[in-house]
Amino acid sequence: MNQGRLTRVLDSMKEQNIPQMIISDPLAIFYLTGKWIFPGERLLALYLNVNGNHKLVINKLFPQEKDLGVELVWYEDTQDGVEILSNYVEKDKVMGIDKIWPSKFLIRLMELGGGSKFVNGSPIIDYIRMVKDDEEQELMRKSSLINDDVMDKLIPYVVKGLTEQELNDKVRELYKEAGCEGVSFAPITAYAKGAADPHHVTDNSKGKHGDCVILDIGGMKDNYASDMTRTVFIGEVSERQKEIYNVVLEANLRGIAAAKPGNRMCDVDLAARNYIEEKGFGQYFTHRTGHSIGLEDHEFGDVSSVNTDIIKPGQVFSVEPGIYIAEEGIGVRIEDLVLVTEDGCEVLNKYTKDIIVVPDGE
Amino acid sequence: MNQGRLTRVLDSMKEQNIPQMIISDPLAIFYLTGKWIFPGERLLALYLNVNGNHKLVINKLFPQEKDLGVELVWYEDTQDGVEILSNYVEKDKVMGIDKIWPSKFLIRLMELGGGSKFVNGSPIIDYIRMVKDDEEQELMRKSSLINDDVMDKLIPYVVKGLTEQELNDKVRELYKEAGCEGVSFAPITAYAKGAADPHHVTDNSKGKHGDCVILDIGGMKDNYASDMTRTVFIGEVSERQKEIYNVVLEANLRGIAAAKPGNRMCDVDLAARNYIEEKGFGQYFTHRTGHSIGLEDHEFGDVSSVNTDIIKPGQVFSVEPGIYIAEEGIGVRIEDLVLVTEDGCEVLNKYTKDIIVVPDGE
Repeated sequence: MNQGRLTRVLDSMKEQNIPQMIISDPLAIFYLTGKWIFPGERLLALYLNVNGNHKLVINKLFPQEKDLGVELVWYEDTQDGVEILSNYVEKDKVMGIDKIWPSKFLIRLMELGGGSKFVNGSPIIDYIRMVKDDEEQELMRKSSLINDDVMDKLIPYVVKGLTEQELNDKVRELYKEAGCEGVSFAPITAYAKGAADPHHVTDNSKGKHGDCVILDIGGMKDNYASDMTRTVFIGEVSERQKEIYNVVLEANLRGIAAAKPGNRMCDVDLAARNYIEEKGFGQYFTHRTGHSIGLEDHEFGDVSSVNTDIIKPGQVFSVEPGIYIAEEGIGVRIEDLVLVTEDGCEVLNKYTKDIIVVPDGE
Repeated sequence: MNQGRLTRVLDSMKEQNIPQMIISDPLAIFYLTGKWIFPGERLLALYLNVNGNHKLVINKLFPQEKDLGVELVWYEDTQDGVEILSNYVEKDKVMGIDKIWPSKFLIRLMELGGGSKFVNGSPIIDYIRMVKDDEEQELMRKSSLINDDVMDKLIPYVVKGLTEQELNDKVRELYKEAGCEGVSFAPITAYAKGAADPHHVTDNSKGKHGDCVILDIGGMKDNYASDMTRTVFIGEVSERQKEIYNVVLEANLRGIAAAKPGNRMCDVDLAARNYIEEKGFGQYFTHRTGHSIGLEDHEFGDVSSVNTDIIKPGQVFSVEPGIYIAEEGIGVRIEDLVLVTEDGCEVLNKYTKDIIVVPDGE
């Protein structure tokens, strides 16, 4: 197991009086052990105890060649894995439970009396994962550098006549060519009316002269996600589009300026939101300003008006204000990832935010 | 809600003394309401009560245009959905819980005292879903007919020199062309050594003269899954391959013959398994004989040696014996879906099980 991460988890368990905990999320298990194990519907439980008696309860269908730094406890399909797990727990103490652990396992553990009380233990891991360590910061930088490059390669494909779906397929191709494991979320490649609807699903509409085009894309590189949005224009950009673009750009920059230790997550949201409201577009900015990111595109830690958590160095999150005016068929979003430093933040995306007008063409 | 299905669920709840139940699996909710709702990490809970006081607790982010035949209870992201749900439950009675309900919700419901005891309620739905009603039987037939057609179109693509991955991509393409929503599981297109390893992952090895090729494919059509396996040979088939093929074929036919009401699920497994053992290949048949199928490729109800449940008319499951001899690089599996009738079964796959040798070619 990664000893630095494990120590932070155990320290937090002690602080919060959760002496033992079951972790089942493959992402959290990867975070601690460095190994992806996808058990499907089968039980996979990393049991942590502040007394050091850690176990990984795992089905024999998933043999492990590498030493994971934790004792493995094997079970077979014909055995009751939760009962085997329950032999190791301290039945008279509080038990932290992974937020996504399927209820069938928790109900069985309760039947077996596997703890004096059951609480959601996931916030412990979530808060620790929110602050990236040095190794993770380097991987996040690398992943976003590739994303800049993919955006640069993608934009020349934006031409009149290409469908959203064709452009979308191209995005997936570019990440593969760039050596990524794949995309980090379903890419958004939306023209005009689609761009003006944040819930739009990619379809076969074609780009036309004068369209704004939202490109919201990200890849997975060495297990870490990137995520960036740029909005470009086909053939020409109208004065109205330019006005909206510049408001979103300034909101993006203000959000980034507020991303520093000591500020709260909601301060980033408000910095962007207040500016958009001031300019009269408040009703058209209908989502939160951003989200944390790391092993997943969306991780615990919203950049929203209700998240009063204090920002810490090492956090990585998106700043992605947008304005969507359905009746005008205009949608603009500009998104960067920021890595919080000791006194501000490093913007992980270097790709230009100048207005880009791609040539017409078929 | 589908009244026939709902009635069957409520009757079973009464029988099992589970007067109220929370269903969260989108598949089970679709089964009852006819509507797909994918809430991601957010709470979605269909609360059923034998007294008729059913509710669907749902986030405002998922507006419903269609009447689902159940009262909707809305909550927002800033609200505690489980607390809202808890206002409707009978706190002094047993509560059935969906097997996949994330523990964070169950822990919160327990904190709120939302039931006198919590039990796994999913077997109720699982057993009902296992027996397909008339509408479902028709959809299963249709889905498998398309699968026959896709297999017929796929086999001509099997030639020497094509990689497993290329053949795999072709499978996905063919289902799209056939009007399917997509594949019902990651297709298996495995040559020789890959075919001889039931855990093989599709790679870039190329087909060679004399290879056996396992094609295990299925699609989703109108929400219902198909699943069929055929094994073909490139250029020629050796006497040894023929011998093994014929043993697997006879095992497949014996399994199908045992698929009738009154027999147990394990009888189907044993009919296939005993024949393969008798022929001396027992150690090379390393998996269960089949699985139930419907809205998902793998549904509750194994065709395995330990499942003593009695077979009922309306069940649909696979019969898919195989022999895998790693040291000889030979793997053969033959799979059909069967729909159990009043006195036997209907084989949903009509595609030939004669030995097919595809021409060499590059």
